[in-house]
Amino acid sequence: MREIEGGITAAIGFKASGIHCGIKEKKPDLALIYSEYPAIACGVFTTNKVKAAPVVLSQKKIRKGQARAIVANSGNANACTGKRGFDDAKRMCEIAARELGIDSEEVLVASTGIIGECLPMDKIEKGIKIAVSSLSYKGSHQAAEAILTTDKVVKELALEVDIPGQGKKKVKIGGIAKGSGMIAPNLATMLCFITTDACITQDALKEALQKAVNESFNQISVDGDMSTNDTVIVLANGKAGNRRIKTWRRKPTLRVEDENFEKFYLALSYLCKHFAKSIVKDGEGVNRIFEVKVEGAPFPQDARRIARQVANSNLVKTAIAGASPNWGRIIAALGSAHTKVKPEKVDVLINGCLVLKNGQSAGASLSSLREVLSKEEIKITIRCNQGNCQTSFWGCDLTERYVKINKRYI
Amino acid sequence: MREIEGGITAAIGFKASGIHCGIKEKKPDLALIYSEYPAIACGVFTTNKVKAAPVVLSQKKIRKGQARAIVANSGNANACTGKRGFDDAKRMCEIAARELGIDSEEVLVASTGIIGECLPMDKIEKGIKIAVSSLSYKGSHQAAEAILTTDKVVKELALEVDIPGQGKKKVKIGGIAKGSGMIAPNLATMLCFITTDACITQDALKEALQKAVNESFNQISVDGDMSTNDTVIVLANGKAGNRRIKTWRRKPTLRVEDENFEKFYLALSYLCKHFAKSIVKDGEGVNRIFEVKVEGAPFPQDARRIARQVANSNLVKTAIAGASPNWGRIIAALGSAHTKVKPEKVDVLINGCLVLKNGQSAGASLSSLREVLSKEEIKITIRCNQGNCQTSFWGCDLTERYVKINKRYI
Repeated sequence: MREIEGGITAAIGFKASGIHCGIKEKKPDLALIYSEYPAIACGVFTTNKVKAAPVVLSQKKIRKGQARAIVANSGNANACTGKRGFDDAKRMCEIAARELGIDSEEVLVASTGIIGECLPMDKIEKGIKIAVSSLSYKGSHQAAEAILTTDKVVKELALEVDIPGQGKKKVKIGGIAKGSGMIAPNLATMLCFITTDACITQDALKEALQKAVNESFNQISVDGDMSTNDTVIVLANGKAGNRRIKTWRRKPTLRVEDENFEKFYLALSYLCKHFAKSIVKDGEGVNRIFEVKVEGAPFPQDARRIARQVANSNLVKTAIAGASPNWGRIIAALGSAHTKVKPEKVDVLINGCLVLKNGQSAGASLSSLREVLSKEEIKITIRCNQGNCQTSFWGCDLTERYVKINKRYI
Repeated sequence: MREIEGGITAAIGFKASGIHCGIKEKKPDLALIYSEYPAIACGVFTTNKVKAAPVVLSQKKIRKGQARAIVANSGNANACTGKRGFDDAKRMCEIAARELGIDSEEVLVASTGIIGECLPMDKIEKGIKIAVSSLSYKGSHQAAEAILTTDKVVKELALEVDIPGQGKKKVKIGGIAKGSGMIAPNLATMLCFITTDACITQDALKEALQKAVNESFNQISVDGDMSTNDTVIVLANGKAGNRRIKTWRRKPTLRVEDENFEKFYLALSYLCKHFAKSIVKDGEGVNRIFEVKVEGAPFPQDARRIARQVANSNLVKTAIAGASPNWGRIIAALGSAHTKVKPEKVDVLINGCLVLKNGQSAGASLSSLREVLSKEEIKITIRCNQGNCQTSFWGCDLTERYVKINKRYI
């Protein structure tokens, strides 16, 4: 596995474009991703009960397992927009399908931005036409730009993996993503689109995606808020295997039980983790990110709950923002998580410096802690010493700038 | 019921003092509350699994139901201090008991401040001696000052209630409290001490306190973080009934089943709600507070979960800080709460202005919303329209100042 150029258009047969259609004042706001060949599709969506229209629609469509285009806009979430919003989301797919000359059932849709306003459909219609005519094998960067909201950094990555039986060329997986507020466990206002030319079964793609998402996007938090629009979609057109989907022979198609499945899943997971970490790093007002590693927990959910509680604690987050050696906040957050963990057995380390031993102060000096806390990346290790379960979670500091950005979002 | 002067020393037979013993650099840091007569006692403590030594000790002692003094320090939480911390907490009770000439089993203890440092016991020993000699019927304000940490405002209140059968004078209930960070449901770094001369049974006092706390301190949040030291204690010496506890006749002693119990409970609840709201208002860096009222929820826990999720959402809190009409954040928070509520039936009002009707934008103008949001107090009403359960929860905005304060706490 190695990183390559090309982002979401790195895999064979994928084109993309990103244009400005007028939802935002100046910046690109409409992205299109297209597979020249039929493709299978999988998705993971927000678990928020309040789901935006494009989420409801794409979630429904993707159950059929086939899709070859994604149309996505930024600047407007098309959420809480009622029947009109749902019709608009459908219409976005229909326009894209018509312009691409494919079935509208094969077009998925995603939106991100402000909640509660209807989409300017005239601008979007014109925009989709331009986006279709702008499709290019080198369009990844433009598409990645067009899905951003408050992000400062474009997020794209592609990988090349050697999977025997998948044609002469290596399998490619690439994607684009956006954060950067309302980022919490179980997704957030985050979009991530991934394409691959791997020749893979629907089940294998689904399994790989769910596992990869659990290890990445479900293990990050910027502000503990969960969005109405989170969407992760992966399209696989099987072109690395050089066979059309409908005529795929058994052999080159990657299945869950194949020994090479692990390779594919690991690459997908690598990609998702890269994006997840990029999203936290680029979180609104974020200065530094930190990892909460929980080890030795009695149950997996204990490890997860502790990691999340610590990573989401405003007091821990502000302490990290100020490099304040206030480790009491870590142990207070740990204690408030609903777990079976006994605090009197717990050790806590900050960047390797022991601050708590068996639930008691380890007497670390404030000056050495301040030094440790001024490092670029912070790792909080929580050793429960009461089992074998572990997890890693990524959080970020809470800065004045976060407050400033979110006070004036609209 | 009417508000009167005197705070925690308003009730007959209670004295208090607050002095500087040297835990903090200059400010008062040691408080003592004392009943001249035997008293029954009840308490509610943090549900954090990590409990400070004084919490563990007082929780154990209060089970016996009798206590007539509380010694409390600020500036040091005596948490995560192991056996030494527990011994120190015990020692604080012993010193106070010796100086007061009472049994050390009748002295409770509380601490608030930094976690993980041991108490300077020599300073505290000298301090307790001074505190005992400073005890006064007018000492409420000094005691209230001595328990503060980052609070800006002293919190004290007393009430007079007419409860037939409780002697010629009215029953008095008074208290002092402190916030102001780590304030979350199920208590927080908050201390609240209450005294009353009501002649009441242990059961009735317990029931009244638990109900009052559920309606007040458990319904507020400053930052969603839960402390290791939260303590609410009430002492009742029965002096309004003019009878020593041990010789109380059946009649004047207030029991749960008495019709006058309601009067007592309502007064206690009024007091607790007053303190709860004061704590939020005086929260670290708080500019404005807001009420989240959830109505028509199918189950009580649904109402509570939604109210908490909304009140704790950093995005809602920053929107209120900036008077930003971003109501989408309210509905996103609602949807991320684990409830049975169907978002498509929900209406949301901000200070009476309808923003969401049946889960869809109600088309409120941004300018009118900005006006509504610039009011001193904000009320977010969430009408679920799917049941009869309701709750009220108090939260506060998230400001740059909160971040600034908590970046540099130590």
